[in-house]
Amino acid sequence: MDKDGKYLKRGVDYPIIQGKRTLPGKYYHDEKIYQQELEKIYYKFWIYACRAEEIPSSGDFKLIQVGDESIILVRDKSMKINALFNVCRHRGTQLCTEPKGNFSSKSILCPYHAWAYELDGKLLGAPLMKEENGFHKDNFTLHKAHVHEWEGFLFISLATTPEPFEVQMEALMGKFSEWNMAELRIAHHIRYELNCNWKLILQNYQECYHCPGVHPLLSQLTPFQSAQHDSSKGAVIGGFMELTKERGSMTMDGEAAAPPVYDVSGDDLQRVYYYSVFPNMLLTPHPDFVMYHHITPLGTGKIVNDCYWLFHPEIINDKQAQKGIISAVEFWDLTNKQDWTVCEQMQTGTKSMRFDRGYYSGREDILYALDQELLKALGHDNPEEDGE
Amino acid sequence: MDKDGKYLKRGVDYPIIQGKRTLPGKYYHDEKIYQQELEKIYYKFWIYACRAEEIPSSGDFKLIQVGDESIILVRDKSMKINALFNVCRHRGTQLCTEPKGNFSSKSILCPYHAWAYELDGKLLGAPLMKEENGFHKDNFTLHKAHVHEWEGFLFISLATTPEPFEVQMEALMGKFSEWNMAELRIAHHIRYELNCNWKLILQNYQECYHCPGVHPLLSQLTPFQSAQHDSSKGAVIGGFMELTKERGSMTMDGEAAAPPVYDVSGDDLQRVYYYSVFPNMLLTPHPDFVMYHHITPLGTGKIVNDCYWLFHPEIINDKQAQKGIISAVEFWDLTNKQDWTVCEQMQTGTKSMRFDRGYYSGREDILYALDQELLKALGHDNPEEDGE
Amino acid sequence: MDKDGKYLKRGVDYPIIQGKRTLPGKYYHDEKIYQQELEKIYYKFWIYACRAEEIPSSGDFKLIQVGDESIILVRDKSMKINALFNVCRHRGTQLCTEPKGNFSSKSILCPYHAWAYELDGKLLGAPLMKEENGFHKDNFTLHKAHVHEWEGFLFISLATTPEPFEVQMEALMGKFSEWNMAELRIAHHIRYELNCNWKLILQNYQECYHCPGVHPLLSQLTPFQSAQHDSSKGAVIGGFMELTKERGSMTMDGEAAAPPVYDVSGDDLQRVYYYSVFPNMLLTPHPDFVMYHHITPLGTGKIVNDCYWLFHPEIINDKQAQKGIISAVEFWDLTNKQDWTVCEQMQTGTKSMRFDRGYYSGREDILYALDQELLKALGHDNPEEDGE
Repeated sequence: MDKDGKYLKRGVDYPIIQGKRTLPGKYYHDEKIYQQELEKIYYKFWIYACRAEEIPSSGDFKLIQVGDESIILVRDKSMKINALFNVCRHRGTQLCTEPKGNFSSKSILCPYHAWAYELDGKLLGAPLMKEENGFHKDNFTLHKAHVHEWEGFLFISLATTPEPFEVQMEALMGKFSEWNMAELRIAHHIRYELNCNWKLILQNYQECYHCPGVHPLLSQLTPFQSAQHDSSKGAVIGGFMELTKERGSMTMDGEAAAPPVYDVSGDDLQRVYYYSVFPNMLLTPHPDFVMYHHITPLGTGKIVNDCYWLFHPEIINDKQAQKGIISAVEFWDLTNKQDWTVCEQMQTGTKSMRFDRGYYSGREDILYALDQELLKALGHDNPEEDGE
Repeated sequence: MDKDGKYLKRGVDYPIIQGKRTLPGKYYHDEKIYQQELEKIYYKFWIYACRAEEIPSSGDFKLIQVGDESIILVRDKSMKINALFNVCRHRGTQLCTEPKGNFSSKSILCPYHAWAYELDGKLLGAPLMKEENGFHKDNFTLHKAHVHEWEGFLFISLATTPEPFEVQMEALMGKFSEWNMAELRIAHHIRYELNCNWKLILQNYQECYHCPGVHPLLSQLTPFQSAQHDSSKGAVIGGFMELTKERGSMTMDGEAAAPPVYDVSGDDLQRVYYYSVFPNMLLTPHPDFVMYHHITPLGTGKIVNDCYWLFHPEIINDKQAQKGIISAVEFWDLTNKQDWTVCEQMQTGTKSMRFDRGYYSGREDILYALDQELLKALGHDNPEEDGE
Repeated sequence: MDKDGKYLKRGVDYPIIQGKRTLPGKYYHDEKIYQQELEKIYYKFWIYACRAEEIPSSGDFKLIQVGDESIILVRDKSMKINALFNVCRHRGTQLCTEPKGNFSSKSILCPYHAWAYELDGKLLGAPLMKEENGFHKDNFTLHKAHVHEWEGFLFISLATTPEPFEVQMEALMGKFSEWNMAELRIAHHIRYELNCNWKLILQNYQECYHCPGVHPLLSQLTPFQSAQHDSSKGAVIGGFMELTKERGSMTMDGEAAAPPVYDVSGDDLQRVYYYSVFPNMLLTPHPDFVMYHHITPLGTGKIVNDCYWLFHPEIINDKQAQKGIISAVEFWDLTNKQDWTVCEQMQTGTKSMRFDRGYYSGREDILYALDQELLKALGHDNPEEDGE
C-alpha cells in the first residue's frame, strides 16, 4: 500500500504467478467466441460511443458502429441525445450513411420510401399511409438504445434492460471530477487500423512489464516500477504511474503540454492515470490533458482504434500553446505505434498449435483479472489452471 | 380493373396490409439460404443467359456464370445453340476462359491434354487414346444444360429435367409479340457491380411506392399512381405505367427515343411495361425500345447487374438517331443508380438484430407475391405472420 | 523395363485405366479436407523448408510458413540448425517477423517483454523474473520442430515423433549423389503466386500426357514418349525423360547451360529427372544444373510456389557462363507458366457440380499412386471405383 493506504504497489520481483495462466489462443482467433463477445458484451454492456461535444447542436448526429449494428447518436430539438438503430421500421433500409453531420430538417428521412422520423425516433409520417387497417404511427418508432453521459463522454447500451451505468462503471463514479472533463475539448484525433483482437489492446494497456523494452522514452518519464493500481476488479480497472519530472507530462521532452487542467492538484500533478473501461475504452488522464482510446472490433483479428486528445478549450484556442499539444500528440502517437507492433505480433503468435496458454508474471496479475471479467461476461468456465 | 378489365388498378390509400410482412433479414444475409437458392433456383429454374444476337455465327460462344457453374453457350455448325458445362470430361479442367469469342476451329480443345470436342459437346478425339479397355468416346460427351429461345432471348436450365419453359414462363407466352424483340439489337450495355442481395433488385423493380422520393424525373414521366399489374403470381410478374406525355418515352426529356418498335400500337404507345422474369431478369418494353437487366448473384450481398438497351437495327445504324439512344441510356443509367443506392442501404439495414421483419404497404403487395414464389421454390414454410 | 531392368517404360497406347478415376472435386475445394491435410500431412510429414546455404553463418535465420505455423530455421553458435516455433513461451507473441536475416546478438529477443532465447531455443533470461515460485527457465525453452539435412536441402517435421526421414524418403536415399547437390548454389529464384490447390502442381509434374499440347518447346527437347518411372509408390515418386540433343539440356536452345555437374556421367548425361518429394517439393536434376520447386499452400485454392535453380558455384561466379544460366531460367519460367495456366483452369473446372470424378489414362497412372498416398495420409477410404 502507498502512503494514503489506497493503492496496491506492485512487488519488485515478478516470478510467474503460481497457476495463473493466460486465456487459450482461441479467445483471439475463434469466430464463434467473437460472435459470443458481440452478443454478450458489445450488444449488452455500456460501451463508449462518442463525446457530447461531437454533436453539440440540435440535429447533429454521429454514426456508431457496434458489431453488425449501426447506431445514430443524435441530439434532438430538446437537446436530448438519442441513440437510434439506423434501420427504417418499414422494410429495414439503413436510414443514414454519412459518418457524421446534421439533420438540417430536424427529421430523419428514409431514402427509400420517404418515411420520416423525428430526432427522438417517432414516426412523423409515411407517404400515402393512412392510420387505419392496423397501421398506427406510434407502433413504428425507431428502435432505440440507451444513452448515458459521464463527464462529457457518451456511453450507449444496446441491451433491452441494461445494468445501471453506475453499477458497471462503479469504479469511475466520483473519479476524476477534478479534471472537469465535460468542459475539455478534442484537440486532436488519430485513427489506427490494427490487425489484432480487441482484448490484446486492453491487456497491453494494463501492464508496464513491457515498457522498458518497448517504450524507452515513456520509461524515462514514468518508470515502470511506479505503476500502482487502485481498481483491480470489475469492468473498470486502473491505476497510475508517477512522473519523474517535477510538473512534467507525457510529451516528447517530458515537459507539461499545458497548465494543469481545472482543479487537478496535489499528488495528481505528478501522476498519469491508466483506466480501462471495459470493453472498448482506455482513459488516460494526465495533469494537463486527457487522452483516450475508442476501440471498435471488426472481427477476431481486426479493430479500429480511435485515439483522442482532450485539452482545456483555452489551450486549444491559444496559438502559443499549440507546441504543447503537438508534443503530447507526437509522444503518444510514437508510443501507440510501439504498442501496436507487439499487439499484432501477439495476435499472430497465439495462433500457433504450440501455444496452448501463456503465463502471467507477477507484474501482469491485472490481466488475469481482465480475463476473469471476460469469462464471466461470456458465461465461460475458467480454463483449467496449470495444465502444464 | 381498367377499361379492358385486364389490369388490377392499385388503390390510392396504402395502409400496411393486414398481416403481410417481409421476409426475415436472414434471407438476404445467410450463406446457407444463399446456397439453397443456388441449388433450388439458379441450378433448376430457367434463367436468362444471353441474347441470340450475341452469338450470331457458327462457332460463336459466350460464357455464362451461374453460381459456381460456368456454361459455354455456343452456336454449332448446324446453327443450333448448345449450353455446355465448361468442364473437360477427362480430368475436370475448365475448357474455356475467354468471356466470349469464336471457336474458329469449330471445336473446343481442352488446354490441358488436348481432348477435342465438337460444338455440340461430342468428344472428337483424345490424343493417344484408343477405343478399348472400356474407353468409348460416346461416353465422354460434355455435360449439357437445356436451352430455350424466346423472342431472341436465350434461357438455360441446369436441371436434368426442367419444368417446360412455357410453364415457368406462362405469363410471357404470347406477350409482347408486337415488339418483335427477336429482331431488335443491343444498342448499349452497362455493367453494374452492386453490394446487395439479388432479390432486392427484383423487389425494387416491382413497386413504385419509392418513385416520388427516389426518382423525381421518372415520376414526372410516369406518375406512380398509374402503375397497374396484369400478372401478379408465379415466376413472371409484371404490369405497366402510363406515360404522361403523348408519344413520349423514358428519356432525359421525356420525348420518344425512336419511332414505335414494329407493331406496337394503341394503348401500348403510352405504356412502359415492367416484367420480372424470376429469378434473374427484368424486362422493360417501352413503345420505342426495350431495356432489360440480367442479374448474376455472386454471394449473399454481391451481384453483377448487366443492363442492355435494345433498339430497332435501323435506328442503331442511323447516325441522326443516336441522340435518342443516348437519351434513353442516360435516363435509365440515372434511374438505375438511384435504385442501387437504396437497394444497398436496404442490404445493410436488414442485417440489424432489431430488424425482425418489415411491413408491406398496400402499394407493395406484389413483393409479397415475389416472396411467396421464393419460399415455394426453396420449400420453406411461410414465416409466421404478424408476430409483432 | 528398359535395358538395365530398372525403369518402367510406359506403353504407347493410353486408354482409360479400367476403374481408375481421379479424386472427387472436393479434394481441391473443401475447407475441411484442407484442414485435415494441414494436420495430417503438413504438420506431420517431413516437408521441405530451405537450403542450408540460405543460412550459412551462425545467427542466420529464415522464417518458414507451414499452414498457420511460423518456424524460425536458425543456425546456432555450434553451427547446428534448429527449427524453432516462432512463439514466445511467456504469452505467445511472435518473436520474429523478418522473412530472413541474422540474429547478430546470437540470441532471439521477444519484442514484447524482452524475454531472450538462445539460438537453440533455451530461455536465456526474462527481465525481473527470479527462478522461484515455480518459475524455472528450463521449462520455458522454445518449442522445436525436427530438422534433417539431405544433400544441402533442409527438411523439417512438426510432428512430436516423426517417422524417420529415411523411411519417408526411402526412394531418395543414395539417389543423385553424383550431383553432389550440397555443393551446388542457388543461381536464381522466382516466386509464383497461384490460384490452385497444392496437389494439382504435383499431379501436373508427374505426367507428360499434357506435354505435346502445353509445352511445344519442352516436347522437342524431351519427347513425352521417353518418360519412365523408377519410383512409383510412396512419398517419393519419380523418373526421367531423355534429352534428344547430345549433351543437351532444358534451355531455350536445348544446349547445355553448363558442363555436367560434378560426377554426373553415363546415361544421366542424357536425362532430366522429375522427382516429387511429397508433399511440398519437386526436384528436377539436369546433367548441368538442378531446378526445384518449394510449394507453400495458403488455402484450398491458393499457393506460393518458389522455383530455384542450382548451379555449380564456379559457373555462378563466371561472367562468361551467365548466358547458360539465363537460358535455363528462361526455359523453365516459360514452361512453368504454361503449367500454371492449366493447373488454375483445372482448379476452376473441378468445382462444377457435374464433375464427380475424372478418368486417368494409362499415361497418368502415377497420379493414381499420388492419390493413394494422399488418402493413406488422411486416413480416408479409397472412393468407390467406376461409379459411372
